Amino acid sequence: MKNKISGQNISIIPLGGLGAIGKNITLIEYRGDIIIIDCGISFPDDETPGVDLIIPDFSYIRENRKKIKAVIITHGHEDHIGGIPYLLREINVPIYATRLTIGLIQSRLAEHTLSADVTFIEVHPRDVHNIGRFSIEFIRVNHSVSDGVAAAITTGVGTIIHTGDFKIDFSPVDGEVIDLYKFAEYGERGVLLLLSDSTNAERPGFTKSESSLTEKLIDIFSSSKGRIIVATFASNIHRIQQVVDTARRFNKKVVISGLSMQKNVEISTTLGYLNMKDSIIEIEQAKSYPDKKLVIIGTGTQGEPMSALSRMAFGTHKHFKIKNGDTVIITASVIPGKEKMLNNVVNTMMSYGAEVYNDEIHVSGHASINELELILAVTKPKFFMPIHGEYKHLKAHAKLAESIGIKQSNIMIAENGDILELTYNSFVKKEKIELARIYVHGSETGDTAGKVISDRQVMANEGVLIVTLLVSEGFLIGNPEVRTRGVFDEENIDLIARIKKDAAANIKKMLKKNQNPVEVEETLRRGLRNLLYKLTKRNSLIVVQIIEV
Amino acid sequence: MKNKISGQNISIIPLGGLGAIGKNITLIEYRGDIIIIDCGISFPDDETPGVDLIIPDFSYIRENRKKIKAVIITHGHEDHIGGIPYLLREINVPIYATRLTIGLIQSRLAEHTLSADVTFIEVHPRDVHNIGRFSIEFIRVNHSVSDGVAAAITTGVGTIIHTGDFKIDFSPVDGEVIDLYKFAEYGERGVLLLLSDSTNAERPGFTKSESSLTEKLIDIFSSSKGRIIVATFASNIHRIQQVVDTARRFNKKVVISGLSMQKNVEISTTLGYLNMKDSIIEIEQAKSYPDKKLVIIGTGTQGEPMSALSRMAFGTHKHFKIKNGDTVIITASVIPGKEKMLNNVVNTMMSYGAEVYNDEIHVSGHASINELELILAVTKPKFFMPIHGEYKHLKAHAKLAESIGIKQSNIMIAENGDILELTYNSFVKKEKIELARIYVHGSETGDTAGKVISDRQVMANEGVLIVTLLVSEGFLIGNPEVRTRGVFDEENIDLIARIKKDAAANIKKMLKKNQNPVEVEETLRRGLRNLLYKLTKRNSLIVVQIIEV
Repeated sequence: MKNKISGQNISIIPLGGLGAIGKNITLIEYRGDIIIIDCGISFPDDETPGVDLIIPDFSYIRENRKKIKAVIITHGHEDHIGGIPYLLREINVPIYATRLTIGLIQSRLAEHTLSADVTFIEVHPRDVHNIGRFSIEFIRVNHSVSDGVAAAITTGVGTIIHTGDFKIDFSPVDGEVIDLYKFAEYGERGVLLLLSDSTNAERPGFTKSESSLTEKLIDIFSSSKGRIIVATFASNIHRIQQVVDTARRFNKKVVISGLSMQKNVEISTTLGYLNMKDSIIEIEQAKSYPDKKLVIIGTGTQGEPMSALSRMAFGTHKHFKIKNGDTVIITASVIPGKEKMLNNVVNTMMSYGAEVYNDEIHVSGHASINELELILAVTKPKFFMPIHGEYKHLKAHAKLAESIGIKQSNIMIAENGDILELTYNSFVKKEKIELARIYVHGSETGDTAGKVISDRQVMANEGVLIVTLLVSEGFLIGNPEVRTRGVFDEENIDLIARIKKDAAANIKKMLKKNQNPVEVEETLRRGLRNLLYKLTKRNSLIVVQIIEV
Repeated sequence: MKNKISGQNISIIPLGGLGAIGKNITLIEYRGDIIIIDCGISFPDDETPGVDLIIPDFSYIRENRKKIKAVIITHGHEDHIGGIPYLLREINVPIYATRLTIGLIQSRLAEHTLSADVTFIEVHPRDVHNIGRFSIEFIRVNHSVSDGVAAAITTGVGTIIHTGDFKIDFSPVDGEVIDLYKFAEYGERGVLLLLSDSTNAERPGFTKSESSLTEKLIDIFSSSKGRIIVATFASNIHRIQQVVDTARRFNKKVVISGLSMQKNVEISTTLGYLNMKDSIIEIEQAKSYPDKKLVIIGTGTQGEPMSALSRMAFGTHKHFKIKNGDTVIITASVIPGKEKMLNNVVNTMMSYGAEVYNDEIHVSGHASINELELILAVTKPKFFMPIHGEYKHLKAHAKLAESIGIKQSNIMIAENGDILELTYNSFVKKEKIELARIYVHGSETGDTAGKVISDRQVMANEGVLIVTLLVSEGFLIGNPEVRTRGVFDEENIDLIARIKKDAAANIKKMLKKNQNPVEVEETLRRGLRNLLYKLTKRNSLIVVQIIEV
């Protein structure tokens, strides 16, 4: 570790990927150059009703657009690539990624009609690219999507390794084992900072190999009598390959249902990551095959309402409906929060007589404790920062690093928006960027203040009460009009009368003072909110509108 | 099995407890007499926003009020007793239950100021009560709340056993082992129908004894340095006893936080089901003890926002705030759908430096596969109907019964609202009652049609668009007024202008025809809904109001 420039520093800026799953994006800044590692989205939950997706806050990137030299993408999952179309509207910057990852990104860009001017640089494991003041080597890792890589980023201060999402698979479906030699070689030369995937940092042992599922699939295929329906993530190319291989072994044909999966299968087949030879048939051909010759692969492992599996269960699929004799294999773990939706789909399918396999037909794509220890042990980083995971996962990973011998003071649990300063001798928090949540709904992006979402939450729980007052030349005309939606009290005549009376009395007072109508509406709204709460303990959303006649 | 009256039949009418967890209630009707077994509530989920609870549909009970002889309660959990206050507003009927269960019911009734005229009959295991044309013997079972019983209901046609919720615990905290002899004795004499708890019918093996947690608690208490905070269900008296016993062993004092838990502890202590001697202190006394002498027990195992644990985590608890050095033990499994909320609480507590134990410090209160097999084997029922569980649990339990030797044609997977006819020789579905979901929100009960909830769901996802039109003597006055809340397009001026134009044009046409205003509003609403969907692919709730000036 000689020749390190001691006066220099690197900024590490996680804009996502910490504290909650999803939306991975990290900036690394060194002597005026910035690279962006991954650019993902996260998906909405109960707290963000009606939102399609959540993208990173690009403010810092916008303010520093001239410094940004490249986007480095570790693999093709939505939480690592989904934000790229939105990023490219802000800045035009080359994208470094492996072949399949580029294919998957291009498919997203095409959806956004954004493909024209984008520069892609295809990288391969062990390629070294000099980008601005950074020298970046890509290292093969295993994960649930093919062609994943880690990045070893070397600067004048030292080397940073960013693992991306990874596991260690000694018998991967595509034969491409994680390049442990490279991790160890960097360890031997000296790693200043390791950023490592924490998703499974609470899970003991070693994550099983993807190919350990082969036997289970064969067992289920052997005992099935009719159609086989397999639900998996659209991006899980290895899983799709295993199902296709098993289908081939049993002389069955495979139908791919659903646009996202069809696209991914097409990209992966074209690029040579998936071998569908002689197995795939078009969905329209399915009816000319007997049930026992058919395997249908589609999305729906989380019970998503628009997925192939849900539609087959609830009878809204264009081609297939779950029936007696079907065997359904759900090859994924359920994501916390989705259990009820998935249970509903499973119960419905079972009530039609389907046999449903829902447990243990899955292996994780993320490293468990022993694998994390191994990477820590071979890279021997001076500083360590766990990434990708909730606080508890980061904490567990930090403890693990300590137990492996990294000094507690050299381990950093950061938060999204932290600006961390890394020198040869130190790794500290310097500043914090306040990050907004940027919601995307259809073609609209916005709601940085969260007003749309907070109004929706109020209406979801308490409904809306609409009070309309007509005013002419400073006088109230007639009685206030009250309408409600989603309110249990809607037939409570006394309550509605009381609200009308209160609104009328208050507006009369205010009209005398000749106030600005927007202020009058707001004052009335607040008064009615207090009245409603006093009378009913409810906090329905109140809309007051004053209309000049 | 002699002397059975072959011409007679019994109706079994599950009004809850099948298809989804919660709200257990079953009616048994024989020769004009009806008994009700359990009367629970279920709790709202994502699909019922802003609802406090869901009670059974009492229509059938209301229509047959004269036939109803008794309510039999198996144990004191909300999903078995919570509906009683609402039932008692409909009919006055005696309640048969064990001592602790009566205590817990009385506490609920007091909250509803409903305690005066209710008749309770305290029952004990092996008591036989003749109620109308039924003879009912109560049988001790184990469960996560004390004093649970099963019911053996004998009629002229035969005996029905209803297990309630149960497990088999050979070393229960209160020493009261399930009365396997009684189950076997009925089996020996002949059981016509068994209704048995299916909650854990997919779980292999034997559920562990409640007292197996003692050792784990001792381990955690030994390694803790500061305060110990234990979250459990308010009704889990055994668990509270174990924590108190462990606290006593370590010479620590116990504080009970939260009204529901304080009430349950008080009832259980008064009735002799809980021994708090020398251990409990008032919450106000806590500050005079050092941290290492304190154990705080409260609710919050599911991350519920108003629970003691959440309030301690987020700093809104009146007395305690989670801090560095605290040890938090969450002694429950998380209910599907609550994972995100609980994770949020756990992550927050860990970020303050608390040690959190969240895995495996819990045993289930329900029987696993081996226990279910045992009950099936000793009762040897002619007919079998799995109860309590989702479809997949009922199905798994049905398969288990078949594997134990019960004829497939004698096993019934029913649905809530089915009227099932049981004779000595047959068990078949006869009719189906359509059940409404009855929501309770504060003091209001209603929404049988689900309109309030469906409007809330739409507003949660897409917001509301309010269009107001002023009309005088058959003419539109001025421009339509448009307001939105929770809509991303709210600043889309073109869209709003288009809506105003469309609404104006349509109402002018309709005003010429002199239609009824309610119909005009509805027609306008439908037109605007289609327009909005065409332009934006959104389905915001649309409120149209026409005001006569």
